[in-house]
Amino acid sequence: MTDEPTPSRRAFLAGTAAAGAGLVASAAAAQTADPLITEVQPWASAFGDPVDAAPYGMPISFESHVVRRNVEWLTESPVSSINFTPIHALEGTITPQGCAFERHHSGAIELSKTDYRLMINGLVDKPLVFTFEDLLRFPRHITTAFCECAANGGMEWGGAQLEGCQFTQGMIHNMEYTGVMLRDLLAEAGVQTAGKWVYVEGADASSNGRSIPLEKALDDVMVAFFANGEALRKEHGYPVRLVVPGWEGNMWVKWVRRIGVYDQAVESREETSKYTDMMPDGRARKWTWVMDAKSVITSPSPQAPIRHGAGPLVVTGLAWSGNGRITRVDVSTDGGATWTPARISGEARSKALTRFHYDMTWDGSEMFILSRAMDETGYVQPTKQALRDIRGLNNVYHNNSIQTWWVRADGEVENVEIA
Amino acid sequence: MTDEPTPSRRAFLAGTAAAGAGLVASAAAAQTADPLITEVQPWASAFGDPVDAAPYGMPISFESHVVRRNVEWLTESPVSSINFTPIHALEGTITPQGCAFERHHSGAIELSKTDYRLMINGLVDKPLVFTFEDLLRFPRHITTAFCECAANGGMEWGGAQLEGCQFTQGMIHNMEYTGVMLRDLLAEAGVQTAGKWVYVEGADASSNGRSIPLEKALDDVMVAFFANGEALRKEHGYPVRLVVPGWEGNMWVKWVRRIGVYDQAVESREETSKYTDMMPDGRARKWTWVMDAKSVITSPSPQAPIRHGAGPLVVTGLAWSGNGRITRVDVSTDGGATWTPARISGEARSKALTRFHYDMTWDGSEMFILSRAMDETGYVQPTKQALRDIRGLNNVYHNNSIQTWWVRADGEVENVEIA
Repeated sequence: MTDEPTPSRRAFLAGTAAAGAGLVASAAAAQTADPLITEVQPWASAFGDPVDAAPYGMPISFESHVVRRNVEWLTESPVSSINFTPIHALEGTITPQGCAFERHHSGAIELSKTDYRLMINGLVDKPLVFTFEDLLRFPRHITTAFCECAANGGMEWGGAQLEGCQFTQGMIHNMEYTGVMLRDLLAEAGVQTAGKWVYVEGADASSNGRSIPLEKALDDVMVAFFANGEALRKEHGYPVRLVVPGWEGNMWVKWVRRIGVYDQAVESREETSKYTDMMPDGRARKWTWVMDAKSVITSPSPQAPIRHGAGPLVVTGLAWSGNGRITRVDVSTDGGATWTPARISGEARSKALTRFHYDMTWDGSEMFILSRAMDETGYVQPTKQALRDIRGLNNVYHNNSIQTWWVRADGEVENVEIA
Repeated sequence: MTDEPTPSRRAFLAGTAAAGAGLVASAAAAQTADPLITEVQPWASAFGDPVDAAPYGMPISFESHVVRRNVEWLTESPVSSINFTPIHALEGTITPQGCAFERHHSGAIELSKTDYRLMINGLVDKPLVFTFEDLLRFPRHITTAFCECAANGGMEWGGAQLEGCQFTQGMIHNMEYTGVMLRDLLAEAGVQTAGKWVYVEGADASSNGRSIPLEKALDDVMVAFFANGEALRKEHGYPVRLVVPGWEGNMWVKWVRRIGVYDQAVESREETSKYTDMMPDGRARKWTWVMDAKSVITSPSPQAPIRHGAGPLVVTGLAWSGNGRITRVDVSTDGGATWTPARISGEARSKALTRFHYDMTWDGSEMFILSRAMDETGYVQPTKQALRDIRGLNNVYHNNSIQTWWVRADGEVENVEIA
């Protein structure tokens, strides 16, 4: 499964000079026949778009394959469903809002800032209702954090594999949020001594209510209204969503309308019938909120095969941990027999996506490539077998195991399991 | 000049509870009459958008005022012109590609990856032509950097003021780039001892040729193909642009097609007839590439007036320096008589936009608000008068002086100069 754009006719004509060179740079001699070098091209002899062409721009048409995608048969209805970030085609650490995965329980609602209200009630001295403008008057903070669905990679537990890095591991995104700290809003209301939990509801029909221990609520939970510099998009909770760094995505309540303070967890439908981990003995683990350290190679991967043949190859991937910073990522090209440290590129922020690169020379033969993340707590990303030994095969959530890609000699890549 | 969205009718009906409260949080008692609290709202009782609604999403309609804008009379043609980032409406540090300012000399061209070529020639051992795929095989790096037009704030030199923060200071953006280091490409070609400069050309009709000293080219200049996680947008140089951290935007050549190595600067049209600084004695300063430390309060500002009356007020702004990290930002609310340090929010990265916040209580009377940036070299952002004393009034470029906003008692804000 690939989703490369179709080459233009011009490219096809010029293709002899560029394709299959197998060298990092084609020798100058070979280029004398390349009309892209020797002839004046249309884009160099005519005006392009004016500055008023697109007040708000979209990606160029050549990138129309870099979109979030959903899988119809996964869920009964697309209003209570999921789509996937095209992580196989992205680089760096930021996920653009436009292609960042969505998970809704009753669809993405349209709620204006003027219609927006946030209530804080329960075990507080002074129940409060904030307008959107009220929130803008509290001290603002910035944090970059990954948001991963607890079910990311969940099909892998039982060995049912969705082909493609996007579909296997794409229920994740990473944005720079600006908002106010939940602790500042709670302080305004005055949490009573008996208050030990908050229960957070969204303004959508599902409400997606989730309980969060007060300790976390007072730590790094943010009531956010900007993502990647601009307002949250509709599908990401406009105008206000909760950001719960390091914890599973379903707790990042969108269109947040109420935060109640209670003496215990509410144990609502969303935190009992879902988002608990079925163990082999039939019992369910609950309150497994933290997303443990994980990594995945995003290219090469099933939707991003190797097209250039043997020689220099850049392996790129993402690593993250809900417990802090990524300190190291190892890559194996022999199915896990040997490991070599990859480069951490850019910043390794706490509870945020971290990019790694591994520069290698590919000999053109098949490889089983894997990555393994370590975080600042000393935790090491486990093998799939290690997780299954403890948690069995009937689980859906919290698969943070090592992902294996089989790179074939022809450069195509498949999602496989190795013994 | 404001560009707030028009409130919906529902908001108007509910407005009595929310508007003009003047308190951070309205008391619970006042909310009992608010239908947004007491009644089930339509968005809480119907499905929203399904997950296949927008494979690549756009901002919600309520944010349609947050767009880049151009000023028709500023230039003769919109294909050789500029537009402005809506910095008055953004937060955090990242600028989304879709609303990041554009400057073109002959329009934004459409150039596919398959049609793309990059030539390195001149004083090199081995002239080379790279395809796009060749570039993907070099080690990738990530850097976050601001790109500021040398003319940002240029109208202010002579006191001709464009109303609005967007138009006055919006020729700037800040993105996370991924690409390959120019030094790695130059090493592949082998720079000869006589080579002291590179000359960089774009594939557009203007070519926008610019000379860069070899020392900078071998330092932190990047040949970038991703911005904010995804492919560069067309208007930002798809598929490949130069990133020249800390240096003026016109050197960040888009659609880069050739990098020539020479023993001296080429002194092309773009670096002599433009982008030099006219001094009072009629001589022009040249090679003024670095963008010195600067800051601006983005809200409140002329397009972002205060609507909520006296009480808690969040002042938010941006600071940056082409010479390194921002170490401190001071804010004055009395026209520069006294200064108080603002909070640096999030990370203060070298040669990147840094967000500052200043939390204050506004007494409802008029203010002259200013910000002043300091960087790690010890440089302090100068007053406008200090710059004029040396550089006069006939300049266009490199106005990094302190910007003053006059906040009136009614909350409206104007761009003013103070003695």
